[in-house]
Amino acid sequence: MTCIYTNVDNMFNFAVGPVQSCDAVRAIGAEQVPYFRTAEFSEMMLENERLVKKLVHALEDSQVAFMTCSGSGGMETAIINCLTKEDKALVINGGSFGERFVELLTLHEIPFTEIKMEKGKALKPEHLTPYEGKGYTAFLFQNHETSTGVLYDAKLVSDFCKRNGCFMIVDAISSFLADPFDMTELDAGVMITGSQKALACPPGIAIIVLAPTALKRIERTKCCCQYFDLKLALKNQERGQTPWTPAVGVLRQIHARLKEIDSAGGAETEIVRTAHLANYFRIKLKEFNLPFEIFSESLSNAVTPLHPTTQSAFRIFLKLKDEYGMWVCPNGGDMKEALFRVGHIGFLSESDYDKLINTFLDLREKKFI
Amino acid sequence: MTCIYTNVDNMFNFAVGPVQSCDAVRAIGAEQVPYFRTAEFSEMMLENERLVKKLVHALEDSQVAFMTCSGSGGMETAIINCLTKEDKALVINGGSFGERFVELLTLHEIPFTEIKMEKGKALKPEHLTPYEGKGYTAFLFQNHETSTGVLYDAKLVSDFCKRNGCFMIVDAISSFLADPFDMTELDAGVMITGSQKALACPPGIAIIVLAPTALKRIERTKCCCQYFDLKLALKNQERGQTPWTPAVGVLRQIHARLKEIDSAGGAETEIVRTAHLANYFRIKLKEFNLPFEIFSESLSNAVTPLHPTTQSAFRIFLKLKDEYGMWVCPNGGDMKEALFRVGHIGFLSESDYDKLINTFLDLREKKFI
Repeated sequence: MTCIYTNVDNMFNFAVGPVQSCDAVRAIGAEQVPYFRTAEFSEMMLENERLVKKLVHALEDSQVAFMTCSGSGGMETAIINCLTKEDKALVINGGSFGERFVELLTLHEIPFTEIKMEKGKALKPEHLTPYEGKGYTAFLFQNHETSTGVLYDAKLVSDFCKRNGCFMIVDAISSFLADPFDMTELDAGVMITGSQKALACPPGIAIIVLAPTALKRIERTKCCCQYFDLKLALKNQERGQTPWTPAVGVLRQIHARLKEIDSAGGAETEIVRTAHLANYFRIKLKEFNLPFEIFSESLSNAVTPLHPTTQSAFRIFLKLKDEYGMWVCPNGGDMKEALFRVGHIGFLSESDYDKLINTFLDLREKKFI
Repeated sequence: MTCIYTNVDNMFNFAVGPVQSCDAVRAIGAEQVPYFRTAEFSEMMLENERLVKKLVHALEDSQVAFMTCSGSGGMETAIINCLTKEDKALVINGGSFGERFVELLTLHEIPFTEIKMEKGKALKPEHLTPYEGKGYTAFLFQNHETSTGVLYDAKLVSDFCKRNGCFMIVDAISSFLADPFDMTELDAGVMITGSQKALACPPGIAIIVLAPTALKRIERTKCCCQYFDLKLALKNQERGQTPWTPAVGVLRQIHARLKEIDSAGGAETEIVRTAHLANYFRIKLKEFNLPFEIFSESLSNAVTPLHPTTQSAFRIFLKLKDEYGMWVCPNGGDMKEALFRVGHIGFLSESDYDKLINTFLDLREKKFI
């Protein structure tokens, strides 16, 4: 019997999701999954909600939906529950995930204007100036465009939204717990994240935090999909339940991880830890003068996007996987040969980056890079 | 730190999903979740597809979609990808899941007629006779209506569909691997199941098998939801991939389980095993003359639905959970006090049923039932 991934525990995973989990999360993965229409499950879900709200600094009367789907499912859920054909949306498109927002707005016939960003470039005030006072009602963007490793200035977008009365939907899937995020200060209507990024649990759950402004929009919107209907999800979550059988195992792992983060000092501590690892890696890259250019002019702590100057990015990805037991994150499409990414989220340590740097040095020694 | 469900591994789970997993599946749950945009993941997914097709006796040119969602998400996916406003559907509604089909057809504006069944009653030829030759184009039903434990006669529906040229969508979520099912013989267009039923993996994945007749329908239907668009899912699955980050961990567990079932003799062996456990339990119930009436006149091997004659069903559920560490499956709504269900799917043995029977005897001794 061929066993695929037999050596999965011997791999080093520097991808950007799924990422490495801590021992407590893995131990729960080995347990039986409990029946969930119980008071015990409800209690856990209400605590999950409370802790997520705390980590993003949400207003007290915000609500959280735990949806069994990917982050992209979460993005679609936000759009079809909060926006209508009466809206006029602005959307930043600087990579694959911005493109996904564009596709979703198109499919769901939400009128929108696209702010097309050059890949790797930071958002600046002049990108938004042309849209001031033009009657836009909603703004969608990635806090961190994961595909290119660009952190967009959420404060800049937030100020625009406050001036223009725009409802703000933030895809914070890969920046949550990696970069500072204060939902109340930003006056964000929706923030979306996923179980397999800095929460470092297996994939399967999208988390959507909804400010009171979002709850009002949901109330008056007819959702086109029963499974993604936030009215149903929120009504159930009020008693700690879900309308459909959720990924109970992942929700239990999220619970353990949220408590771990909370008791270690909250989002701020986790962000400092991630920033430290990112800086550690970036300093080493420079110190050894490795043949990689940092692609993004506005970095997130979550990822370092690298353009190798001496070898195909995809060939480096394959080489690391097949010969060194390491996953970095390859890019697709027209970035396949040009870019790969090294993640800093999940259960990683300085010594893991030492191993990665040593591997790069070995590859340079062998003239592969 | 309060730990909810600490004793989850000491519980006996006779619910109908999530169910108990075998050691191999649990061991994978403890492993790191691998990065998945790789040839290794693709190879696994193609093998998953091949094995699922074999287990349901699908035509060679059928395709399988693995969707990260619940079974209800799978039901909605089938409807929005295979049916249109030009259809005229028949749907059997004999419980919560039939009701869900009705809600979905209503939401998506698919014209339909409901065959309302009395709860607990079997499907008979006379239920279908009024609809012969009336131009119906599609037929949706639960092979096993999980909420009441009624197995509907798939052969009867299939014959109707063949005579009337109806496209057949079968929710086989809880009957897959518990009751015989031959997709080709039945000429079913779609069959839906989930990871947390007889596959005995954690919840998070719906599996949808699509016959060539379904593939043709999908090709010409515009899906109203990107996340659930089967055109995207199937195009990706052709190379063993998914459009969005899937529940990679659960897919790996499904892989182990499919191979286990296949090497043990396939679906037929698993069905015999489940039928044996169901019969073992039912004979004991009778032998000890326990105060429960079997609610369904057409039983699946997956579940025994019981109406207790001396105590509230919900109070029995709570008593078993809180004092004996056992989950049976409670009912909701107007069946809450009248019905509970004992499942026979998942990693269970005769001795587990002995323990359950002994518990019932103890409850009778104590005059609780």
